[in-house]
Amino acid sequence: MTDIAKLGEFGLIRHLTDGHAPKNESTIYGVGDDCAVMHYPDKEVLVTTDMLMEGVHFDLTYIDLQHLGYKSAMVNISDIFAMNGTPRQLIVSIALSKRFTVEDMEMFYSGLRMACEKWNVDIVGGDTTSSYTGLAISITCIGECAKEDIVYRNGAKDTDLICVSGDLGAAYMGLQLLEREKSVYYQQVNEARKKNDKRALEELAHFQPDFAGKEYLLQRQLKPEARGDILQALRERNIHPTAMMDISDGLSSELLHICNQSNCGCRIYEKNIPIDYQTAVMAEEMNMNVTTCALNGGEDYELLFTVPIGDHEKIEDMKDVKLIGHITKKELGHMLVSRDNNEFELKAQGWNPLKD
Amino acid sequence: MTDIAKLGEFGLIRHLTDGHAPKNESTIYGVGDDCAVMHYPDKEVLVTTDMLMEGVHFDLTYIDLQHLGYKSAMVNISDIFAMNGTPRQLIVSIALSKRFTVEDMEMFYSGLRMACEKWNVDIVGGDTTSSYTGLAISITCIGECAKEDIVYRNGAKDTDLICVSGDLGAAYMGLQLLEREKSVYYQQVNEARKKNDKRALEELAHFQPDFAGKEYLLQRQLKPEARGDILQALRERNIHPTAMMDISDGLSSELLHICNQSNCGCRIYEKNIPIDYQTAVMAEEMNMNVTTCALNGGEDYELLFTVPIGDHEKIEDMKDVKLIGHITKKELGHMLVSRDNNEFELKAQGWNPLKD
Repeated sequence: MTDIAKLGEFGLIRHLTDGHAPKNESTIYGVGDDCAVMHYPDKEVLVTTDMLMEGVHFDLTYIDLQHLGYKSAMVNISDIFAMNGTPRQLIVSIALSKRFTVEDMEMFYSGLRMACEKWNVDIVGGDTTSSYTGLAISITCIGECAKEDIVYRNGAKDTDLICVSGDLGAAYMGLQLLEREKSVYYQQVNEARKKNDKRALEELAHFQPDFAGKEYLLQRQLKPEARGDILQALRERNIHPTAMMDISDGLSSELLHICNQSNCGCRIYEKNIPIDYQTAVMAEEMNMNVTTCALNGGEDYELLFTVPIGDHEKIEDMKDVKLIGHITKKELGHMLVSRDNNEFELKAQGWNPLKD
Repeated sequence: MTDIAKLGEFGLIRHLTDGHAPKNESTIYGVGDDCAVMHYPDKEVLVTTDMLMEGVHFDLTYIDLQHLGYKSAMVNISDIFAMNGTPRQLIVSIALSKRFTVEDMEMFYSGLRMACEKWNVDIVGGDTTSSYTGLAISITCIGECAKEDIVYRNGAKDTDLICVSGDLGAAYMGLQLLEREKSVYYQQVNEARKKNDKRALEELAHFQPDFAGKEYLLQRQLKPEARGDILQALRERNIHPTAMMDISDGLSSELLHICNQSNCGCRIYEKNIPIDYQTAVMAEEMNMNVTTCALNGGEDYELLFTVPIGDHEKIEDMKDVKLIGHITKKELGHMLVSRDNNEFELKAQGWNPLKD
């Protein structure tokens, strides 16, 4: 393992970024000066940023640095898609404590690059520095969109259809699964320590949690995919969403953002919320309500969007997009209609990093 | 004091950003959607980012949150100036631990805004989240520049003059001063505790370090200014720098960047390096070599640039710009000529966050 101090800041940056030619015409100059330089003569420039802190947003006991890099890039790319844009450049800042090596950073960058290559994004700069405690990551993604194609959160209208891509709640159940296996592991370690059972401790060093049949949940938690493919499918069908977001904090929270900003109400149907079989099984196993998980779990990175009611047939025809309800007048509130036809007020109970 | 949990992430963001209309035509949409939206039809877009970690880049025992906000914004604005650009938008990400209150964030934002207002910059977005330990700040600044006006690091040519704005080493001496007063304070507290001297401890609670006659050093450390005024003065005189950087890690380190990227050598003169009187006095007091402080101290945020030798008279005529040497052929190395006419090889001993 190579100590990062051996390379220093500039050496490390060169080591991680050399030899990667930019793929986008809009990328004029990347790593190596005070600023990155871009050129967007005919389009609007989209910029989004996300900060990820060790212990709050990720736990390195169950996500490796390659997956973390992939996820960090993908969640930012997802925000560009959420405006109907095309991602083009990524700026990567990391602060790391002394326990990280050059090889760790190589893994992180290989994950970043995998995500960037999938969507043709150039890494054009950032900041690499040190931290006293743990890893802090801040990623900024830059994209483009023609002015008339941008989809904001505030364009939903009464009678519009509410659609969601993929399925919901799986990333959250994946997290529950990882947390459970982690606590089982530490429980066994503690017991073996109490008994001073050296053989058990040795076996535990090679502990392999059993995730058989639950691979999809792990994949959704550890390797989320931004849904640029859905934008492509919408364009092919000539469907222009009136409002759009990506689902990072949970369906409830995001749908309320769209309703608040569009000044309208909504009515969604529990029976229409797309849920994968593995998500349902895992919720059952953990004695959790699967609809609550789908509404509030978060980290799905699926697209939530509204379309005019005239697009009904086109949407029904789409693979991997589900119609879950419709936009209403504001006075009708934000309602969830349950399977047994009861009505509930939707609440944003999704992930709030600043709550107690 | 107001607990941040009371407002939540979106409440806090609204509280800090509501009621500030954008001032730049290029700012199309700011806080409140998945991305900020900008429009740069005729210019190149410049993007820079900086990450600041508590304990590594700042110490809240001697910088208050308002100054920290000001400095965080200013050092990024400085990077845009370093390309000869005009700063336009700022994106602010913060991760904070539970000890911070809404009022703390108001102070931080008031500092950010002061810096932004000085240079007409719009705050257009960011991310606000929590941290287990301390405060992490990541700022991204977006600016613009006409293609033909951008000044990179790689354009310096043999015989070009090397110029620097303002004076150097003062921010570093300001840091030394703050560190000294901090250690004096803790020494006194420890002694009082040992003796259980309650009266002394009470007095120490109102400890006021004596900074009389050293205000300039503190100001340079706590409230750095980006030198957009120098760019303006250069334009008025029709001077086009061939290479430029801002001095954040120290003159030596930055000059070596310019030489490496421009594939040339340099020769600078110790007697020409601009040093303020207070910097010299403080270095004397601390038994430090003032030239070493000026070469390697860092955090000056002055501009270092090269101009064709034909601009000699125009530069001599400029207020607050000093000619410190000239660019040479690469074979001649990177030389510092001391006051007694000895020659030394310049070394980058500036601040390296990833060094042991």
